[in-house]
Amino acid sequence: MKRTAVYPGSFDPVTRGHLDIIERAGRLFDRVIVAVLTNPSKRCTFSVSERLRMLEACVRGVPGVEVDAMNGLLVDYLKTRDSRILIRGLRAVSDLDYEFQLASINRQLDARVETVFLMPDERYTYVSSSIVKTVAQFGAQVDDLLPPAVCRMLRRKYPLSRSRSGKRRPRRALSFLSRRGRRARRKG
Amino acid sequence: MKRTAVYPGSFDPVTRGHLDIIERAGRLFDRVIVAVLTNPSKRCTFSVSERLRMLEACVRGVPGVEVDAMNGLLVDYLKTRDSRILIRGLRAVSDLDYEFQLASINRQLDARVETVFLMPDERYTYVSSSIVKTVAQFGAQVDDLLPPAVCRMLRRKYPLSRSRSGKRRPRRALSFLSRRGRRARRKG
Amino acid sequence: MKRTAVYPGSFDPVTRGHLDIIERAGRLFDRVIVAVLTNPSKRCTFSVSERLRMLEACVRGVPGVEVDAMNGLLVDYLKTRDSRILIRGLRAVSDLDYEFQLASINRQLDARVETVFLMPDERYTYVSSSIVKTVAQFGAQVDDLLPPAVCRMLRRKYPLSRSRSGKRRPRRALSFLSRRGRRARRKG
Amino acid sequence: MKRTAVYPGSFDPVTRGHLDIIERAGRLFDRVIVAVLTNPSKRCTFSVSERLRMLEACVRGVPGVEVDAMNGLLVDYLKTRDSRILIRGLRAVSDLDYEFQLASINRQLDARVETVFLMPDERYTYVSSSIVKTVAQFGAQVDDLLPPAVCRMLRRKYPLSRSRSGKRRPRRALSFLSRRGRRARRKG
Amino acid sequence: MKRTAVYPGSFDPVTRGHLDIIERAGRLFDRVIVAVLTNPSKRCTFSVSERLRMLEACVRGVPGVEVDAMNGLLVDYLKTRDSRILIRGLRAVSDLDYEFQLASINRQLDARVETVFLMPDERYTYVSSSIVKTVAQFGAQVDDLLPPAVCRMLRRKYPLSRSRSGKRRPRRALSFLSRRGRRARRKG
Amino acid sequence: MKRTAVYPGSFDPVTRGHLDIIERAGRLFDRVIVAVLTNPSKRCTFSVSERLRMLEACVRGVPGVEVDAMNGLLVDYLKTRDSRILIRGLRAVSDLDYEFQLASINRQLDARVETVFLMPDERYTYVSSSIVKTVAQFGAQVDDLLPPAVCRMLRRKYPLSRSRSGKRRPRRALSFLSRRGRRARRKG
Repeated sequence: MKRTAVYPGSFDPVTRGHLDIIERAGRLFDRVIVAVLTNPSKRCTFSVSERLRMLEACVRGVPGVEVDAMNGLLVDYLKTRDSRILIRGLRAVSDLDYEFQLASINRQLDARVETVFLMPDERYTYVSSSIVKTVAQFGAQVDDLLPPAVCRMLRRKYPLSRSRSGKRRPRRALSFLSRRGRRARRKG
Repeated sequence: MKRTAVYPGSFDPVTRGHLDIIERAGRLFDRVIVAVLTNPSKRCTFSVSERLRMLEACVRGVPGVEVDAMNGLLVDYLKTRDSRILIRGLRAVSDLDYEFQLASINRQLDARVETVFLMPDERYTYVSSSIVKTVAQFGAQVDDLLPPAVCRMLRRKYPLSRSRSGKRRPRRALSFLSRRGRRARRKG
Repeated sequence: MKRTAVYPGSFDPVTRGHLDIIERAGRLFDRVIVAVLTNPSKRCTFSVSERLRMLEACVRGVPGVEVDAMNGLLVDYLKTRDSRILIRGLRAVSDLDYEFQLASINRQLDARVETVFLMPDERYTYVSSSIVKTVAQFGAQVDDLLPPAVCRMLRRKYPLSRSRSGKRRPRRALSFLSRRGRRARRKG
Repeated sequence: MKRTAVYPGSFDPVTRGHLDIIERAGRLFDRVIVAVLTNPSKRCTFSVSERLRMLEACVRGVPGVEVDAMNGLLVDYLKTRDSRILIRGLRAVSDLDYEFQLASINRQLDARVETVFLMPDERYTYVSSSIVKTVAQFGAQVDDLLPPAVCRMLRRKYPLSRSRSGKRRPRRALSFLSRRGRRARRKG
Repeated sequence: MKRTAVYPGSFDPVTRGHLDIIERAGRLFDRVIVAVLTNPSKRCTFSVSERLRMLEACVRGVPGVEVDAMNGLLVDYLKTRDSRILIRGLRAVSDLDYEFQLASINRQLDARVETVFLMPDERYTYVSSSIVKTVAQFGAQVDDLLPPAVCRMLRRKYPLSRSRSGKRRPRRALSFLSRRGRRARRKG
Repeated sequence: MKRTAVYPGSFDPVTRGHLDIIERAGRLFDRVIVAVLTNPSKRCTFSVSERLRMLEACVRGVPGVEVDAMNGLLVDYLKTRDSRILIRGLRAVSDLDYEFQLASINRQLDARVETVFLMPDERYTYVSSSIVKTVAQFGAQVDDLLPPAVCRMLRRKYPLSRSRSGKRRPRRALSFLSRRGRRARRKG
């Protein structure tokens, strides 16, 4: 029996941590669909098409992995893709309660849907899209945390920032430890 | 000695998990006041009067339980109701730190106030008002998670949505896993 | 070798819990710089200059401690102050994941930067700037949680509130347990 | 590609929580091997052959599931069964750190081995073999937590105990909340 | 309606943290029975009669509180005392999962039994019987953590130890951070 | 002012995770004493002199670091070494409660003693002495987790084990996932 798994997320932008989970899922199931959540009322740094393009550049060559956009209930989307498997990365204890709540409601909505939790490589335990964006705004080098294609696009987003010399800064500078940063992370 | 306990919350809307806690509290104390927090500057899905009406429909018949609206400091409200007991449901580890902080500040403000933590039925460990609203917007069936009266009112709030056929959607659709959903849950 | 440590934060306002960490850090390192994060786009209750003034009033007399304002990446600021040591207070489990993420990204940006975690006095485990502000708006006495200078300034911020008699209230009253309060805390 | 997953454990005895995980795993992979850890130096309540027999009675009829005994390193056993997938149930936060440590060392020993975490039905969040045995010794009814075949064998193990009338007790009675119970649980 | 609550534990020995919970429970319910778990096969530092005596000395004068010894299932004991309420102190996150498991099994065995969780004074968040005993063996002063009567009895248990001068030590000295200490704590 | 910090532990055996903490501490303080806890009644795999030798081989060349053996209360030992600083590595949430309890009791015994928590490199988040020993018994390669000198000594301890071919095994084989392994880990 061929099995399809869906890995949903904002991927705003996709990090090396996401890619690590995608590759692991790709070894477990015959097909993995990376599903970019599209929500017109949500403020993302990258547009849906940018996020799809970044992901496609990253998973090119990974067998069995494809990229898609989705909206609405996950259980509805799964049905359209003939899948009953959700993939979620589990980084730390603070993720657990939220992820279990999500898995629980999806199970409630469709009892046949199973959520599979994977543990990313230890190097990516503390990587999130939002923390990467926060430091990138100040010109920080984040090449170890992001795929090369994403690095390039991120640099274009924050063009005023220079390397770490600190000479030029984005106009709407965020303090790294500010409330905004903290809230962003909680959502990331 | 007759003892009155207060169970404060937003109840936006009241879930089966809330009702479970109310019933447990009702067996422990002579009187339980379910106190709806009213805050004009806060954006709730249901108005204070809607929330009061829903709760009253739900607790009708539960002996010793009444419903009230409150504003301001909990310790001040307790005094007006001649109560020194706060009830809080404790679902998961992520609740604990916040709940202990709350209990601690209330104790600081009035040393005679005691917070009593109750564990809901396992079936309601992952139920929250916000996750229920999020999926209800897409027409998901949430009858197992909400009392019947609340289900009806929720359906009236999101009239565009149909059962799970997915044909019609609320205009301002939220992606289930989107940042908004996540933030909402953290507050729920 | 003389060692300088930096203790960054919003300090909006500084609490007794913050002061406790400052004093502990002062015994561990030759110089401690309390760095107020300044972010024009962030909504703080107190202005940067107010926060600096409050902190300076509090640390006056604590040997080796000075107060500064900063913006941008922490690792960049550390370089300008010839420091490689970050101080962070660790109150509870819910802090841990966020703090480790922060320490991890800073280490990624500059491998020589070390984050030192200190445990505050048990009395301050549940004290945060935001919970103190939330209750102070209702006229609650928070003298045990804030230094005297901060208490005075906080009272001036919320002039409509009276002692606990509850007679006059701030116009934009917040319910203590409301979503706003909860979100605020998560950021605090 | 056919995929085999291994679900290792002591199963001393198998609970309804274990069976729930087995059924979920059975829907995800083509073959699931439930591997009973055999360790002569370990004190189990049930012998290896008893545990194998109980499991076989339970999984009879579940397609694609078989039962085996194993010893030694998990990564070595996986190789002999041509599997690269480990199944683990994740009940609560306190499980997480231990399970991640286990998954991490197995990944270290064989990078191709992936651990898949599944969430049991909420009803089984707090069920463990040791807590069931502890209360069964006092004659408590645990039919909701154990499969019927296991109930019968457990009753034979503790023959002195009667229903809850409390008339006859096992000679070496354990206080339910005693240190032994607590330690047992932590291992269970 | 008069309500009786049972606070079960080993109390080996009773600490100021336990007393704090007892006093809080005493304000919530008409009668509180402190139930010492007696288990012949368990190695306690103090005998059952010593523990009962210590507790009685401590709760003398606290209205509505009495001390008892118990064995067997908690739900059976509750029935004999006409109580349906269990009291448990909740100190930290690591307690939560175990306490919820306990509450869950007791609810399973008798659905009318409710577990009430109380938060001790912040000063006692990190106090446990075992850590107090471990340091007392080395002659450490633990008067702030134990009631006076318990201090005296503990000193008689470890007579070789002197104040902190460190001159004489118990023969079977335990390193404070040793595995024994750690395991003990987890059970405490 | 010269500052001495003490890093206490069993180091049975020292892992790369321990060394990582030692190096970080060495950059923070003028002198770091790695203190091996010696406890005659405790069963360690390596003797005190073996553990001292291993540590000395590992820290040779790390400036400012020395190795010592200690027994008794940490606060007493600190006094003899003219130190008021304890170093502890903090790997995960499950460590936190225990470590805070330890820091709290030490602060209680001597208010001038400060515990400094450091975060190890992400690669060592899940490394512990006991898990390394457990898998080493089966001949697993643990060279990435242990310093070379320790690897050699560990191989001598478990001479029957061969590489991963699995041909010869230690007589008293432990199942990797057995209760023993689990308990060991909790202590490690």
